[in-house]
Amino acid sequence: MLEALRIKKPVIHCITNHVVSNFQANGLLALGASPIMGEAPEEAAELTAIANALSLNIGTLNSQSLESMLISGKTANSHRIPVVLDPVGAGASTFRTDAVRKILDQVKVTVLRCNAGELAAIAGAEWNSKGVDAGDGTADISELARNTARELGLIIAVTGKVDIVTDGEHFAEIPYGSEIMASITGAGCLLSSAVAAFLAIKPEEAFNSTVEALRIYAIAGELASKDAPLPGEFQQAFLNRLFSVRSTNLTDFIRRKDGSL
Amino acid sequence: MLEALRIKKPVIHCITNHVVSNFQANGLLALGASPIMGEAPEEAAELTAIANALSLNIGTLNSQSLESMLISGKTANSHRIPVVLDPVGAGASTFRTDAVRKILDQVKVTVLRCNAGELAAIAGAEWNSKGVDAGDGTADISELARNTARELGLIIAVTGKVDIVTDGEHFAEIPYGSEIMASITGAGCLLSSAVAAFLAIKPEEAFNSTVEALRIYAIAGELASKDAPLPGEFQQAFLNRLFSVRSTNLTDFIRRKDGSL
Amino acid sequence: MLEALRIKKPVIHCITNHVVSNFQANGLLALGASPIMGEAPEEAAELTAIANALSLNIGTLNSQSLESMLISGKTANSHRIPVVLDPVGAGASTFRTDAVRKILDQVKVTVLRCNAGELAAIAGAEWNSKGVDAGDGTADISELARNTARELGLIIAVTGKVDIVTDGEHFAEIPYGSEIMASITGAGCLLSSAVAAFLAIKPEEAFNSTVEALRIYAIAGELASKDAPLPGEFQQAFLNRLFSVRSTNLTDFIRRKDGSL
Repeated sequence: MLEALRIKKPVIHCITNHVVSNFQANGLLALGASPIMGEAPEEAAELTAIANALSLNIGTLNSQSLESMLISGKTANSHRIPVVLDPVGAGASTFRTDAVRKILDQVKVTVLRCNAGELAAIAGAEWNSKGVDAGDGTADISELARNTARELGLIIAVTGKVDIVTDGEHFAEIPYGSEIMASITGAGCLLSSAVAAFLAIKPEEAFNSTVEALRIYAIAGELASKDAPLPGEFQQAFLNRLFSVRSTNLTDFIRRKDGSL
Repeated sequence: MLEALRIKKPVIHCITNHVVSNFQANGLLALGASPIMGEAPEEAAELTAIANALSLNIGTLNSQSLESMLISGKTANSHRIPVVLDPVGAGASTFRTDAVRKILDQVKVTVLRCNAGELAAIAGAEWNSKGVDAGDGTADISELARNTARELGLIIAVTGKVDIVTDGEHFAEIPYGSEIMASITGAGCLLSSAVAAFLAIKPEEAFNSTVEALRIYAIAGELASKDAPLPGEFQQAFLNRLFSVRSTNLTDFIRRKDGSL
Repeated sequence: MLEALRIKKPVIHCITNHVVSNFQANGLLALGASPIMGEAPEEAAELTAIANALSLNIGTLNSQSLESMLISGKTANSHRIPVVLDPVGAGASTFRTDAVRKILDQVKVTVLRCNAGELAAIAGAEWNSKGVDAGDGTADISELARNTARELGLIIAVTGKVDIVTDGEHFAEIPYGSEIMASITGAGCLLSSAVAAFLAIKPEEAFNSTVEALRIYAIAGELASKDAPLPGEFQQAFLNRLFSVRSTNLTDFIRRKDGSL
């Protein structure tokens, strides 16, 4: 799939927050995708119409970008291109939680990519969130993800120490990655748009594409954390790894890792 | 205090400009704080209410984010959490100068963190500003800071070759740092939110917390300038140092430095 | 000119997109210019009035920033300071294409800095664009640039494998650079504001200043691609090179390169 992505170079329309937009664009370019950013309602439909996938992120949402997300989401649905939603900070404010509900009501979202706290907020479960960070709680996140995915009729990818992907029936765990990814801003946001890029390659196999995106992303992160163990330098090392990773490296990595377990 | 910050991981609500938001978020994470960015008026009060400090920055201000700053500032006051204001480019436009006055009128600001040109603009002194950079002039900045702090009833931290902190009565100088910090964008902006993070740890000792924040920041910058003397690489080296700095390193640094003076 | 730029430190008012604003500010600082960012209509005229050049970029345009661009453009014209327009993604949406027409109608633009797809969209030529990337087509870009420059009465700089600059009469090619510059976001955007910085030094020799800016930029990029061949690390290496490049290095580089051709 990685090779297919680099040949097809899918256009990903991102409506995203200004904190991570540079990192997100550079990460998509490193993977081989072609990002287009733009959040004016006047152009939302047209930008989505020329894209192969849509990536929505509410990190610095305002009423205007929310309007664009709804327009773009509906356009994506009518053009049958995949939609990824990253509900950054859902639960931190009524505005964000309501925005996520509105998007989920009006747009058929393919994948919801979030952390445990955001999932809990969307599912209405008890959780001790901490701003935009995951926080902690006693809910069984796997069970919650499975039920919520079934209820909402979409795929949920929850990242944390171990990442999980579920569509309510199928379930996958990705045990790779590095703690340092939580020490930089935007690791989750970029992942969400990487999922969009993989969905653009095989939209008909959405579950597998999502698992593949998370697997490659976590492995690139783990390798980069060895190249650059401090957060300042990690961002660059990670972009380098996203650019240079090949399917064969991944197979090697998994074989070595599983052998050493 | 540094160790307390890393244990408490205070949530810092930042309403900031899009030029530095990524650097600011990464810098706060490196120090151990938990940034939340968000500037929609619809969520301003709620985001501030879950935060331990508020950091306001007018670098790419518009009428909507100004409205949010006023809402968040008042919420911070009623929740008794500290407020830092970075008046980027005050004096460069009437809109900015008026915005600073409006915020200072309606919000009890704990610390005003600025450069010499911005201070002069706020105090109404003669100064030859240069866009958002400090410029130069003949005013005695220490005296101006002391008087303005007394008049406005807040702490003023002015950064430049030598940083100064004053509440009108007390006065401290921080002689560390590196010229290269003026060669990257956002060094001042990130410092302002670092001050917010330190205030969140000891709000009752606002003067000392501010001095401590500036001291650690300047030392991390001076050390990073030795690791990476060119501006492209400096940003990463600086984030690395903010992440890895420990109280013991600081004491060593100061002892060596003072010994060699 | 490079030395003059570092002595004069021209103030460049940038109204730009949030994806590249940090990279653009850091790149201008590395070159020796003094960027000021700000896009509120309330301050557009005042910020432009204190600047030595204006740099407009429509990458994440909205109705408000378009309004500011028109105000700032007219202010620049009445103050006789140069204006550079980067029509990011022209052709990707009617909103962007119309915005470019509106700016070109109401503002005397000194230099239009774009890629082949954007030029084709502005000129109304057939072209297979790809989002904000150049795409490919059969039009003769040199011919199209020459004709469009003549028709619009401005200088056009089109970047690609070989960069070209033309005012309709004169014509220059810059054969330096590196493919890796297309693997990071903002290489074109930063270049546009670098052109603004060079125009600020010699506004009366706009064609030569533009050629000089593109030449220095491409050479710094080519040198940086040798320092850092992967895109994650390239951004830093490139900023380092923009900071450290000297006129003598450039002459050496060109002599060596031409000798080896």
